[in-house]
Amino acid sequence: MTARLYHVPLSPFCRKVRLSLAEKKIEVELVEERYWEKAPDFLRRNPAAKVPVLKFDGRMMAESSAICEYIEEVSPEPPLMPRSAENRYEVRRLVNWFDDKFHNEVTSKLLYERVNKKVMKLGFPDSRNVKDGAKAIKYHLDYLAWLLEHRRWLAGETMTLADFAAAAHLSSLDYISDVDWNRSDVVKDWYAKIKSRPAFRSILADQVSGFPPPAHYSNLDF
Amino acid sequence: MTARLYHVPLSPFCRKVRLSLAEKKIEVELVEERYWEKAPDFLRRNPAAKVPVLKFDGRMMAESSAICEYIEEVSPEPPLMPRSAENRYEVRRLVNWFDDKFHNEVTSKLLYERVNKKVMKLGFPDSRNVKDGAKAIKYHLDYLAWLLEHRRWLAGETMTLADFAAAAHLSSLDYISDVDWNRSDVVKDWYAKIKSRPAFRSILADQVSGFPPPAHYSNLDF
Repeated sequence: MTARLYHVPLSPFCRKVRLSLAEKKIEVELVEERYWEKAPDFLRRNPAAKVPVLKFDGRMMAESSAICEYIEEVSPEPPLMPRSAENRYEVRRLVNWFDDKFHNEVTSKLLYERVNKKVMKLGFPDSRNVKDGAKAIKYHLDYLAWLLEHRRWLAGETMTLADFAAAAHLSSLDYISDVDWNRSDVVKDWYAKIKSRPAFRSILADQVSGFPPPAHYSNLDF
Repeated sequence: MTARLYHVPLSPFCRKVRLSLAEKKIEVELVEERYWEKAPDFLRRNPAAKVPVLKFDGRMMAESSAICEYIEEVSPEPPLMPRSAENRYEVRRLVNWFDDKFHNEVTSKLLYERVNKKVMKLGFPDSRNVKDGAKAIKYHLDYLAWLLEHRRWLAGETMTLADFAAAAHLSSLDYISDVDWNRSDVVKDWYAKIKSRPAFRSILADQVSGFPPPAHYSNLDF
């Protein structure tokens, strides 16, 4: 199977799909898509005008969580979903926690203010949003720490899509040095573990013009 | 199996869960939850301070889509998910379309402005938002019509969670007369079909103090 992903490097939704594909060893061609310019070609691929859009087996697919569940169903090894309904529920709850709540309270307030606004020429960061995001991430890191004090991985004893969703958001924020890894040792250890996986390599190699990553970003012993 | 659902009557996310439970003939006790008052008891049930929260087999569950997938897995009959990975993808894509895009562009701009703001004592509707929502719903109804001209149900040949997600949003908006059913015959026929199911009865009986529903709301031949 080969695939083509229309994406932007720092989008956590795109990163979640990239991590899933890489973990399943599905080769993917990455095409950077300036989706906010709404090129007619891109709108034909996805009327919602968002990334990621995955071209896979001739189909155009949108919505990162629907894509990841599809990848899991057609390419179940190695599994990124547990077997029991209870554990699968917990994975989906956490994926949604990050893609909805964490995204609204943190990612959109830090990454979108600091990076997307500049790239999309929408003006300067709103300092109130940045302040709110910087405050909210602490609470979320503490929630992660609480989970990881009870479990090996976020949703239980095995690595799942929940870990990829969380790592996708945190890695994008880490690219702009917005994650305080000293806040919790268990969170730092968890991220070091996931960061050292081969599936993470392409993400650690990302470069966004005008925003050089800090030295620790791609360092596995940060 | 019995269940208890903490909900508010017009929340489309709660309605989607209610429809799933009713279709599976799982009895549920409905408890109205004024979640915006953030009672400590409720925050213990769901730290995200949102509804729905489902108490099911002794577990507290949050996030409507994760809940619906769980219900589907533990109670597969009658099925609300198709069997092939392609069709399951399409269901999840559409559920997300309604719960994310439709919600942001329409539900939050009409229902939240007109009803939630008053109930939560947050002031008057923002007329700009109401205008934007009224404009956006037309585009979404046309998208529904386009899907239904190609398919019996929204995601394919069988009724699925995608139909419930869409009907949950539209029924909440219909309660405040914000859906123009004359815009498309196929959409109206589809809604009449889903509205006449036994699973819909509890939703058609909803009453919100201060907001009497229009006569057509519960009329099956509207």
